[in-house]
Amino acid sequence: MRATRTQVAIVGAGPAGLLLAHLLHRSGIESVVVDNRTYEQIAGTVRAGILEADSVRLLVDSGVSGRVLTDGYRHDGVVLRFDGVNHRIDFQELVGASVWLYPQTEVFIDLAGRRGVDGGDVRYGVADTAVEISGDRPTVTCTDSDGRAGRIEADLLVGADGSRSICRHAFPPGAREEWFREYPFAWFGFLTEAPRSHPELIYTRSEHGFALISQRTPTVQRMYFQCKPTERLADWDDDRIWAEMRRRVNGNGFVLREGPISAKSVLPFRSFVTAPMRYDRLLLAGDAAHTVPPTGAKGLNLALADAAVLAEVIVDYYAEGDADVLDRYTERVKERVWRAQHFCYWLTTMLHAVAGASPFDIERQRGELALITGSRYGAAYFAEAYTGWRQSRSV
Amino acid sequence: MRATRTQVAIVGAGPAGLLLAHLLHRSGIESVVVDNRTYEQIAGTVRAGILEADSVRLLVDSGVSGRVLTDGYRHDGVVLRFDGVNHRIDFQELVGASVWLYPQTEVFIDLAGRRGVDGGDVRYGVADTAVEISGDRPTVTCTDSDGRAGRIEADLLVGADGSRSICRHAFPPGAREEWFREYPFAWFGFLTEAPRSHPELIYTRSEHGFALISQRTPTVQRMYFQCKPTERLADWDDDRIWAEMRRRVNGNGFVLREGPISAKSVLPFRSFVTAPMRYDRLLLAGDAAHTVPPTGAKGLNLALADAAVLAEVIVDYYAEGDADVLDRYTERVKERVWRAQHFCYWLTTMLHAVAGASPFDIERQRGELALITGSRYGAAYFAEAYTGWRQSRSV
Repeated sequence: MRATRTQVAIVGAGPAGLLLAHLLHRSGIESVVVDNRTYEQIAGTVRAGILEADSVRLLVDSGVSGRVLTDGYRHDGVVLRFDGVNHRIDFQELVGASVWLYPQTEVFIDLAGRRGVDGGDVRYGVADTAVEISGDRPTVTCTDSDGRAGRIEADLLVGADGSRSICRHAFPPGAREEWFREYPFAWFGFLTEAPRSHPELIYTRSEHGFALISQRTPTVQRMYFQCKPTERLADWDDDRIWAEMRRRVNGNGFVLREGPISAKSVLPFRSFVTAPMRYDRLLLAGDAAHTVPPTGAKGLNLALADAAVLAEVIVDYYAEGDADVLDRYTERVKERVWRAQHFCYWLTTMLHAVAGASPFDIERQRGELALITGSRYGAAYFAEAYTGWRQSRSV
Repeated sequence: MRATRTQVAIVGAGPAGLLLAHLLHRSGIESVVVDNRTYEQIAGTVRAGILEADSVRLLVDSGVSGRVLTDGYRHDGVVLRFDGVNHRIDFQELVGASVWLYPQTEVFIDLAGRRGVDGGDVRYGVADTAVEISGDRPTVTCTDSDGRAGRIEADLLVGADGSRSICRHAFPPGAREEWFREYPFAWFGFLTEAPRSHPELIYTRSEHGFALISQRTPTVQRMYFQCKPTERLADWDDDRIWAEMRRRVNGNGFVLREGPISAKSVLPFRSFVTAPMRYDRLLLAGDAAHTVPPTGAKGLNLALADAAVLAEVIVDYYAEGDADVLDRYTERVKERVWRAQHFCYWLTTMLHAVAGASPFDIERQRGELALITGSRYGAAYFAEAYTGWRQSRSV
């Protein structure tokens, strides 16, 4: 048995958990992080790739890494494509902001590296993780990657353990509410070895369904197309995938640049929120507390924003010595969470083909896209939401 | 038999029909207008009350009347109220525009008066109206208010005869498409003799459903609350109406100013579009071609905008002598129609309580209201749509 006593035990070594550990460290608060995935598993999973300006500032200013600025790609706009025509939304011109293309795996590598340099206690590849919050102090028990049983006792326990969070399920019955929405579709995502088809992301609405053209590097690109939630990867070889992408995207002079396909996956669509995000000395962050559909790329940004607020609240908790301080966390993040939930829902419903949609709804959808792209105000409303709300909220 | 030959026969003496007749007159094109309602019936029906800036300009600049500017009320903003708090959208500050509170009945009185001064042929209170478009020239037959049979032969026939248009039904099968959407609620509207409760309109979302506080004069106000489409007027006495309004609107220092109630009605909710709006020498304008739910007050403004475009197209038709010119009409108005359809749908879904809405959808709705009212860009997007798109479209 390896017994550890720490101030904050964190379950989940994704961006929310590691950023929280990093920010707490900077404030002199110690933590232990456990994750049942290995470092290689986390680093090897292809995930989201768009960082809001505030997320970039957070990583750079808090000293995680400046690599996003050197290895990432600043995008000053995005394209909404419908009826075969590209409509660019110019973020810089409209709201004076940008986003950065910088994959979540790179954010993880930066955060994990920083924790290593700072001597942080991060335990990857643990097993049998369980949490207990009924005693005097919260505890996490697990089997470490070397097979040794471990027990971590802490002042506070943070569940940053993703959408299937075990920490969330440690809340007693009735201690939190849940809100959720299912969608009748999913995304089929893949990587391709090919040059960029376009310098910026293209969100496409076509009669055959949604498609998203995004990028990773000059030679590897990431793309998605709307599919059924039950779609099987095995049914889609490269030829079929490209045929599907072409009919949704190509036309009027735009031609996809194609290449060999890898890393195929089906991304589920679900909107989920639980609140309050605190019970006693247990707190939830990131996907453990809220899941958004991938449209709009808000999930990673919400997770980082949660960690930043939670770190401040935990610092206040130690400074004031009052557990009620922890209630400020939900209060401070909930508006951002619901704004993002609305934005992701809105972008999803505006761009996807829904089976059984009435002809009226389809034309109305086109009317909405015309409004957003044809008006400076509509475009700015979209641009502000896409790049993140903070900097312009009080303009 | 009273036989008349004219250039343009217009069925419907509402704002679309009368404005079209007026604008054609200014271009030297003669018309005859018929309506099965009497002047008193049209003038006595309480209808919408908000004019976009472009609608005001159209009435004033074309010489209909300047009365909107002296007797109407300029509103530089509107209030969205939710969670018991008023959020003002400042039109002037955000998009440099205003709307005018000036009831549709006043617009009708101005238009009818102008037609009278100009010697226009407008026949109210006709009966048995029928149209025929299969012969050499379109014809309208009806029984005049004095019981005499009438027959009007014209170069062109315009159906400005409202949502139950007989002209629309004269299109041959397959000559036009239809798009529509039903809503599971309606509005209960009424007038009250009371001072203004607020200087500007208040669109209210409450857990008990939508309510709208609007004004008419310093001593008469117009209000609405969301109800079932099957609601019976007889079930609602003054006490019950005020009790319902109070629980949706009062609170946090806001108190309705109440008085005796009259002119109760249940307004149906329906979105409808048909296109093309032309077949041969028959054209549709206003509600005959498209109906919007009352949320957002776009119906009257769309009707006036239709008339303005149609008058120009008819002038071109006579100048160029080519019937194909008439196809420009649908092309020119359809984008505005679908923008308005989207806006009315959007405002409706954002503010109304829908039976069976999931807790997620209710919270998301509040997230959307927070986005629109909490962001300058969101508020400007709303303000542009509410005041009309033209002036800022190409900013």
